[in-house]
Amino acid sequence: MTRASLLERRDRALGAGAQLFYTTPLTIVRGEGVCLFDDEGRRYVDMYNNVPCVGHGHPRVAEAMARQQGLLNVHNRYLHEGIVAFAERLSALHGPAIESVVFCCSGTEANEVAIRMARFATGRRGIVCTNATYHGNSELVGSLTRVGAGRPANPEARAFPFPEKLRPPAPGLSDDALTEAFLEKLGEAIAQLEAAGVGLAALIVCSIFANEGLPDAPRGFMGRAARMVREAGGVVIADEVQAGYGRTGRWWGYGVTEFSPDIVVTGKPMGAGLPLAATAASRSLVEGFRAKTRYFNTFASTPLQAAVGMTVLDIIEDERLIENAAKVGGALKAALAERKPRCARIGDVRGHGLFIGIEMVKDGGDNSPDRAAAIDLVDRLKEKGFLTSNAGAFGNVVKIRPPLTFAMSDAEAFLEAFDATLADIDG
Amino acid sequence: MTRASLLERRDRALGAGAQLFYTTPLTIVRGEGVCLFDDEGRRYVDMYNNVPCVGHGHPRVAEAMARQQGLLNVHNRYLHEGIVAFAERLSALHGPAIESVVFCCSGTEANEVAIRMARFATGRRGIVCTNATYHGNSELVGSLTRVGAGRPANPEARAFPFPEKLRPPAPGLSDDALTEAFLEKLGEAIAQLEAAGVGLAALIVCSIFANEGLPDAPRGFMGRAARMVREAGGVVIADEVQAGYGRTGRWWGYGVTEFSPDIVVTGKPMGAGLPLAATAASRSLVEGFRAKTRYFNTFASTPLQAAVGMTVLDIIEDERLIENAAKVGGALKAALAERKPRCARIGDVRGHGLFIGIEMVKDGGDNSPDRAAAIDLVDRLKEKGFLTSNAGAFGNVVKIRPPLTFAMSDAEAFLEAFDATLADIDG
Repeated sequence: MTRASLLERRDRALGAGAQLFYTTPLTIVRGEGVCLFDDEGRRYVDMYNNVPCVGHGHPRVAEAMARQQGLLNVHNRYLHEGIVAFAERLSALHGPAIESVVFCCSGTEANEVAIRMARFATGRRGIVCTNATYHGNSELVGSLTRVGAGRPANPEARAFPFPEKLRPPAPGLSDDALTEAFLEKLGEAIAQLEAAGVGLAALIVCSIFANEGLPDAPRGFMGRAARMVREAGGVVIADEVQAGYGRTGRWWGYGVTEFSPDIVVTGKPMGAGLPLAATAASRSLVEGFRAKTRYFNTFASTPLQAAVGMTVLDIIEDERLIENAAKVGGALKAALAERKPRCARIGDVRGHGLFIGIEMVKDGGDNSPDRAAAIDLVDRLKEKGFLTSNAGAFGNVVKIRPPLTFAMSDAEAFLEAFDATLADIDG
Repeated sequence: MTRASLLERRDRALGAGAQLFYTTPLTIVRGEGVCLFDDEGRRYVDMYNNVPCVGHGHPRVAEAMARQQGLLNVHNRYLHEGIVAFAERLSALHGPAIESVVFCCSGTEANEVAIRMARFATGRRGIVCTNATYHGNSELVGSLTRVGAGRPANPEARAFPFPEKLRPPAPGLSDDALTEAFLEKLGEAIAQLEAAGVGLAALIVCSIFANEGLPDAPRGFMGRAARMVREAGGVVIADEVQAGYGRTGRWWGYGVTEFSPDIVVTGKPMGAGLPLAATAASRSLVEGFRAKTRYFNTFASTPLQAAVGMTVLDIIEDERLIENAAKVGGALKAALAERKPRCARIGDVRGHGLFIGIEMVKDGGDNSPDRAAAIDLVDRLKEKGFLTSNAGAFGNVVKIRPPLTFAMSDAEAFLEAFDATLADIDG
């Protein structure tokens, strides 16, 4: 099977337009730890995939999956100890305000549940999000994608500009002044919903603004924003699909940006590739939702989800992966930041734990985003055996988000390739 | 762990209101073939679960899961032979008009994709469904549930009364006259959407009206309905989540009710418990959808879904489960129909293959639905070791939908328990 004919078959079988990474796509056939291998046996260091948070092909995950699938995997309208214990363990990873869980199959489904939960609780419909976010692919959740960017308008949603320091609304503002400036924008979005008669149900936000490109928000912004939302009668939804589960070197992204959500949505890493997501909240929020919907999800809240989900949590704890994310991620970010003065194209190096963004900008000193440079860097790093991607509001941020097992030696190997790539570009 | 304390923990961990089966819920700990076992070691014959279509705990499924999870399980933005081959195989199970597949994690997600696909293709928004249907739990798809039954109205949806022979709009109508009567109602729903300015995008219907209670539609209705929808510029979506994958003794429910859908949605049995669903259609419909959405689903179109999905298809073919469904289901339905004259409470016995409904009615000869009698029968059968449920527009249909491995000897054991239960009730 040549790559060209597989691509042609894929275009027909899945429809052309099904997304692919890299200018020349990769055919990946095997994964092990932080490594992926292509059809020609070439090894790549995976610096992109957060779903296999415990590393590709972890034997404990495969074993737990086979054991539970062989023993029992059935829907949740029977009593089952495993799923109850998993919900209890997940809730206990948050503060006491988070008591109950609705399990789902995807982050999209879990964000749907969160938004509908907030709407039932408040009796209002309006949603505020940032102007460069992504929360999923259903009609409701997908309508929040780039609300301000020429997509079909959702009359029940308003966006505010995501908080950042790199391109501030005015130069030289302090953190406090920046916070005030962005809060004003958030307040305007809320006021618009109220003026439109839909009112405010919720703010939904990735706790570390991952799709926005991991901007450094002014310190204190999210705490103030949450308070503003609650004072307006709304509910605060933290989308922790990317930010949570130890990614930042803490359990939750909202610990990094310092706020307390009412509803927490988790997904990607929870099942190490088994579809598994969750919406966690107070018992009263969850029961209000259940009473209104009699929600049932065939594939969610199953013994299989519970067994695999528990195993992933066990591995994160047993292998001290959160500590690893903090240590290796911290060292890698510091090392990349050291490169910034050496390369005018690096506008910024940001991030938390093993989630790092390298912002590529045009030469000129005004931090003008350079998406082409990011794509070029990503392609060149791939050729050197390191898999990243580009992301962010302008598509110009090189996204580094490897499995949480990424070791110091992997970081060192990457830095060597990174330096050589910069030299290639300069040469 | 007593049952009461597990229930109490569940009410907190998942929120009270999370659905449970049976007046006294069951704690199920193990499954094997068509059997489920509770925490006290008691054996039940599973006559409800269609997700484990190849039987509970099938070793080939568990093996395929573990093998692929250990080898590679990653998102679909790399090329992968397995997922392409699975999409090809799935499409080939339909006629030539079905060419391409969008994989999802749940029937809800796949129905969302289908509806949005139809809307993009037609440039219109209106959806027609039956007045007693269920297609999933997202805001969009959930808004189709019981459109006519006091739920929040979806201004872009209209329901028509599901076609049936048991309670016809007028007595003594022929199949042709019944077809005309129900087509008139469908036509009215379409006209209402057009009058409201939203126009017709799609008819979405379970091919065998499963949630409606498996009514016998007048022969020829669905073919005529599909033609009416296409003449009005709409697209026909067959929800085969329950009807498909051999359940009826044929691959697809639309073979039973004799129509050709433009879009086919599959789900529940596809992954034997692994979250897996699909929206299949012509290449042009799928590519139109992809172009508008750049749809990406983290957990869908993965090597794991492909490996497990392929294994389920292999087992269905190798173990000749479709032939089994036709044979055992046909015999069971005939045997149950023989009981009807003996028991005034049985208003009707209907179904296709291993999907059978026993309609419970009040004494009086007018087929007045008796939901309480259905629930009582379901509870009594459970006490005798046979798991069913109640369903249908009036909740009065005992739903029989076992794994496709259900054997003639299982059917005989059930009939014995069924007769004894009827005697208990009479006694």
